[in-house]
Amino acid sequence: MQRYFLNAPIDARVGQTFTIDGDTVKHWVKVMRAQPGDAAEFVTDAHQVVIATLQSTTGQTAVAKITAVTTPQVELPVPVTIACGLSKGDKPEQIVQRGTELGASAFVFFDSLWTVAKWAPNKRERKLARLAKIAQGAAEQSHRTMIPTVQYEADLTSVLAHVTYDQGVVAWEESAKQGESSRLVQTLKHMTAPQRLLAIFGPEGGLAPQEVAQLEAAGVTPVGLGPRIMRAETAPLYLLSSVSFWCELV
Amino acid sequence: MQRYFLNAPIDARVGQTFTIDGDTVKHWVKVMRAQPGDAAEFVTDAHQVVIATLQSTTGQTAVAKITAVTTPQVELPVPVTIACGLSKGDKPEQIVQRGTELGASAFVFFDSLWTVAKWAPNKRERKLARLAKIAQGAAEQSHRTMIPTVQYEADLTSVLAHVTYDQGVVAWEESAKQGESSRLVQTLKHMTAPQRLLAIFGPEGGLAPQEVAQLEAAGVTPVGLGPRIMRAETAPLYLLSSVSFWCELV
Repeated sequence: MQRYFLNAPIDARVGQTFTIDGDTVKHWVKVMRAQPGDAAEFVTDAHQVVIATLQSTTGQTAVAKITAVTTPQVELPVPVTIACGLSKGDKPEQIVQRGTELGASAFVFFDSLWTVAKWAPNKRERKLARLAKIAQGAAEQSHRTMIPTVQYEADLTSVLAHVTYDQGVVAWEESAKQGESSRLVQTLKHMTAPQRLLAIFGPEGGLAPQEVAQLEAAGVTPVGLGPRIMRAETAPLYLLSSVSFWCELV
Repeated sequence: MQRYFLNAPIDARVGQTFTIDGDTVKHWVKVMRAQPGDAAEFVTDAHQVVIATLQSTTGQTAVAKITAVTTPQVELPVPVTIACGLSKGDKPEQIVQRGTELGASAFVFFDSLWTVAKWAPNKRERKLARLAKIAQGAAEQSHRTMIPTVQYEADLTSVLAHVTYDQGVVAWEESAKQGESSRLVQTLKHMTAPQRLLAIFGPEGGLAPQEVAQLEAAGVTPVGLGPRIMRAETAPLYLLSSVSFWCELV
């Protein structure tokens, strides 16, 4: 069943109706050609999922009636913020799309010392808006009950200052090369829901040693993610999969 | 350092020389502009890594001299074969590229009942050759010591008949919906190196119930991969990351 996020609060009880507009109407009614009586899922701002049937539509707005209310548990018990040095091309899009499918709760892109890609200040808002839209689409497709946030920070110092977290890890190739293989596990073992994990990744060229030193001084743990070298956009997926495996399956 | 796979056996001892040709020479000498004395890593057919310096080149061939020999452990202790129902567009390429980074040892693409994408018989060889090339490039980049194989099978019956494995799992959304959350962990707990895992995934539309029934009858375990819905090309990455996390980090 199609799933949409509601931007405004509703009275989430069976039998109540609510009005939708904007892109949701456009997609449900025009693209998916929903007819009166057809059902879809809507996620409320309280992370509930209501099933509602189309009652009527003007083409611009639509009225839907609630037939069921559920509170599914589909979010990672340990919320994860993925912070990545700016990478080139469509890598930020890939990180947001797949990272959303894998359960990330927030994404932060930051300028790091060895970053080659730059977001011109006048294009930043547009890029963030595009990434937010990708996050919303992926959240709908993967049946999340929240849309991950996407933000930009000028450097690592700002990341540490502006992100709320209980434990921090930084993926560092040198850790892996030195055979380090258990700090991620140890970190996860010591976390309990709903503590928040901040996971930091370098851009294509990696983080500079002084950036890793800065992170360590701030209490962030350098962790290896296995002995193979992953590209900048693959490492966050490994981390999110591992957090899910550890917290949701083990 | 640049890494290349050697196609022919060499005498892998310090001080020995060997000759390379084809794409390796083209990339190392022409693209990377290697000069005599410059070093690169070469993976032998015995999965050793030798560091060798360029001695001389004709542009078509080149002679390199071995300065060091190592046997790094970078392969998953439990080799994983990823078998996927044929999916559309560049999804097979994405699966092979990222799956290689994450340590897969083999890929199988098969026609499944609900597959929308089809590989015309006269294009199959070309598609497999392209995927094999992507696997080689990703293996070089991620510093693997083997190149994953890529093959095509006409249906699930052929997959089960032609793939060597000790334990099999199939990613099944219904398992996840029923709250199943530990069969993947149980399967991995009962495996010891170098037992082989076969992991089967549906195409975009998923596997048909009768295909899952066929797999269960053959002893393949349906497993959930967490409560979120992943796209066809993301689920194999989750599985490979989880196997690495479990076998290499925990």
